[in-house]
Amino acid sequence: MTATLTELVARFGGELIGDGARSIRQVAPLERATADEIGFVAQSRYLAQLQHTRAGAVILPLEARDACDLPRILTAHPYLYFARVSALLNPPPRPPAGVHERACVAADAVIAIEASIGPGAVIGSGATIGARSVIGANCVVGDGAKIGADCLLHASVTVYPHCEIGDRAILHSGCVIGADGFGFAPNDGMWEKIPQIGRVIIGDDVEVGANTTIDRGALEDTRIENGVKLDNQIQIAHNVIIGAHTAIAACTGIAGSAKIGRHCTIGGAAMIAGHLEIADGTRISTNTLITKSLPEAGSYTSALPFSEHAVWQKNAVHLRNLDKLAKRVKELEKTMKEWGDKP
Amino acid sequence: MTATLTELVARFGGELIGDGARSIRQVAPLERATADEIGFVAQSRYLAQLQHTRAGAVILPLEARDACDLPRILTAHPYLYFARVSALLNPPPRPPAGVHERACVAADAVIAIEASIGPGAVIGSGATIGARSVIGANCVVGDGAKIGADCLLHASVTVYPHCEIGDRAILHSGCVIGADGFGFAPNDGMWEKIPQIGRVIIGDDVEVGANTTIDRGALEDTRIENGVKLDNQIQIAHNVIIGAHTAIAACTGIAGSAKIGRHCTIGGAAMIAGHLEIADGTRISTNTLITKSLPEAGSYTSALPFSEHAVWQKNAVHLRNLDKLAKRVKELEKTMKEWGDKP
Amino acid sequence: MTATLTELVARFGGELIGDGARSIRQVAPLERATADEIGFVAQSRYLAQLQHTRAGAVILPLEARDACDLPRILTAHPYLYFARVSALLNPPPRPPAGVHERACVAADAVIAIEASIGPGAVIGSGATIGARSVIGANCVVGDGAKIGADCLLHASVTVYPHCEIGDRAILHSGCVIGADGFGFAPNDGMWEKIPQIGRVIIGDDVEVGANTTIDRGALEDTRIENGVKLDNQIQIAHNVIIGAHTAIAACTGIAGSAKIGRHCTIGGAAMIAGHLEIADGTRISTNTLITKSLPEAGSYTSALPFSEHAVWQKNAVHLRNLDKLAKRVKELEKTMKEWGDKP
Repeated sequence: MTATLTELVARFGGELIGDGARSIRQVAPLERATADEIGFVAQSRYLAQLQHTRAGAVILPLEARDACDLPRILTAHPYLYFARVSALLNPPPRPPAGVHERACVAADAVIAIEASIGPGAVIGSGATIGARSVIGANCVVGDGAKIGADCLLHASVTVYPHCEIGDRAILHSGCVIGADGFGFAPNDGMWEKIPQIGRVIIGDDVEVGANTTIDRGALEDTRIENGVKLDNQIQIAHNVIIGAHTAIAACTGIAGSAKIGRHCTIGGAAMIAGHLEIADGTRISTNTLITKSLPEAGSYTSALPFSEHAVWQKNAVHLRNLDKLAKRVKELEKTMKEWGDKP
Repeated sequence: MTATLTELVARFGGELIGDGARSIRQVAPLERATADEIGFVAQSRYLAQLQHTRAGAVILPLEARDACDLPRILTAHPYLYFARVSALLNPPPRPPAGVHERACVAADAVIAIEASIGPGAVIGSGATIGARSVIGANCVVGDGAKIGADCLLHASVTVYPHCEIGDRAILHSGCVIGADGFGFAPNDGMWEKIPQIGRVIIGDDVEVGANTTIDRGALEDTRIENGVKLDNQIQIAHNVIIGAHTAIAACTGIAGSAKIGRHCTIGGAAMIAGHLEIADGTRISTNTLITKSLPEAGSYTSALPFSEHAVWQKNAVHLRNLDKLAKRVKELEKTMKEWGDKP
Repeated sequence: MTATLTELVARFGGELIGDGARSIRQVAPLERATADEIGFVAQSRYLAQLQHTRAGAVILPLEARDACDLPRILTAHPYLYFARVSALLNPPPRPPAGVHERACVAADAVIAIEASIGPGAVIGSGATIGARSVIGANCVVGDGAKIGADCLLHASVTVYPHCEIGDRAILHSGCVIGADGFGFAPNDGMWEKIPQIGRVIIGDDVEVGANTTIDRGALEDTRIENGVKLDNQIQIAHNVIIGAHTAIAACTGIAGSAKIGRHCTIGGAAMIAGHLEIADGTRISTNTLITKSLPEAGSYTSALPFSEHAVWQKNAVHLRNLDKLAKRVKELEKTMKEWGDKP
């Protein structure tokens, strides 16, 4: 797949300067791009990266019109433009449509005619696979589950019965959609299982990373709204709601019934306690534990600064005595105030 | 599946007040329950939830006898009662007994006649599957492994060779039982593998969450005792012992040879160091790191409070100087004592 | 499989004292070893463990020549010696060579003749499987992927298209090699996917734990160098480089484009931020967050000490006021200095 610069500008907009017939085969970082590859500079402060590039063309911010002599496309959003050019040049490979002879599809499952069901995939009774969706090798789609149109389930994805996934979803290998939430009633020191009869409902344009788990609801559904992006190894407990267009980095855990707003960004390995609400547009740092609702958008953190081991040990021991230290300071202040009050 | 209130009380006990012929089809939260659904109030302080419910019946604590006019069941443990009613009304679906034609069962594996082996499942040589157990699609049960009776392995579970699982286990998709523990002998800057020749032995009534991993022992076995409940994405290293009826929330890691007591509860994303012992009945908070044995039951934590990012940054910098701060306070105290001692 | 002590010394070196004809069937911990088993003592301070052992032989450090009357092998590295004896006595079981009739191998895949492809395994178009490698049940090896010689992929491993794995790799169940990195360009509050066109390149002698995920690069490749050992449930983001012979414990996350040195050891549940470099030979503690480059080898930590819950609460509240506390101490110092300066 190749495209000329003229074709790119016709498709994605931007202002073309230089040879529009230049043919582009691939995107690449500037330092190793070659004559049939296009690079980009996201912001003017990185323009020095252009100096030694051998790229065939570059995507530049508007104000960098004269930053080089290469054929170039000017745009207000170079990174986004680059993403779109890359998507054009790197369409996901499509296996042939139809059901592979080594797939196992229930007689009453509904497979849209252009869909592709890979070898070893198992599609349960009453399940629905939408138009043009690709179900990878060894995936399991449970009874009554519903996968929308234009979805891509990479190999070895598991969708439990009756869960629903919208259009254009990308699910990576090993992710598990709809396992039972962790719900037990205590009974004399033992635990009795509470059936998890809710589902997982996932909107359109959602991406779910490898080995991420999203549990089905206890009574209501767990809901992932449109445009949510989830990295790898995220755990989303039962009854959680993730608002539209929120992005969550890897290894984060979200406990039961938490309601995350729209357009939030959550760093890796964050932990969000259950039964709380987080405002739209909130930003949570890597490794941060959120234990109560955040009614106002903002940037929140509890990530510890690290030190050399020996230094840390010396400091950390005082964490166990902070209250005493604070009291000692108060005592000093009191004494000094008494002394200061004396004539 | 439906049951009348009279049938419920006959089966589960409790005191029935009102129309025993009321037929119940499902459990539901009070705010959306309808005429053929039953809700519950766990404790008297939540009785206000009854005000606008349209539930057909409710389960109430004993002292709430007169809290509403609905048909109701009084019990000392409403949540537990609710769990049991839900379990009655929502039996896990059972695939047909027998070996699916797309399963692959070794000639010398022993499959109890009422068991169900799903499509794509692989049962190794000498493995045993107990009576009425369900092995989901694309599960792999290794050579010589043993699954008890009435177990439910959801799709895509992996059990390594020679591991043993008791009766009534529920294993969720993507969990891996019996991978090698992380054991290497250093050799001149490189690592030589130490064969992990122990097994994983899991008791009765254990539930293991999606994508949880339990490693086999190095020389001895890793052991999960009866009634243990493990959430998703938990990592249990080699030679760990988890005492009976302990419950562990998602994303927790337990390092090698740790011995966790019985009836403990461990919050999400906790980390337990290796080679330590934790007393029966201990409670460990979310995000807490336990680095030494806890010989006495109690509630332990090291979870950080979060702040607005800017506030946190200002405070966190002092963590690197706590020792100096403490010394400065000591110095102040000393000086003041000297001064105070002066006449 | 058995070996006499004489055979062991012929193969692995060391000094034999006592009956060289003693036949050893298995390794075992000293406290439960029997007459045909061999135990070891790693260091002299543990020699008391010899007192009640019924082991048939022991491996001892050089200086422990006279520590017991058992047949014994003296060596400078007893733990390493023990590992090698165990590896000899416990060779990994090898399924028969060839492609299982229930495997699904693309017509143009290249399978070395001594390799073993298990039931339910799917090998993509143009993929290569090296000599003597074992591909477990229900594994998926994507189009154009390359697995070296003498590899062992346990059941249910997923390797995405075009990733490459060297010789003698061990990949545990549920690990996912080559899923898309987490890369999106923001567009007016939404996210547009950036195709991840790099690969994962894994060197020789690498072990990858169960449910560990290693993402493919965005433009360049993610690289895991020779001899790296990764425990379970580790997340390695796109474009990361892990230097040779580095070992990483379970549940650790490494963010995008981090470059980890060679011969590092990283404790469990550590988190390494993206776009930083860590020096060769660095040690990072369990639960530690590394947020900037570590240009010098050393031992780094930010792990919190835990306390009883009530004690912790009392201390932790001051973390939110550390800056104020530090200022109060400064104020006290200033006042005292003023007073002290007065005659």
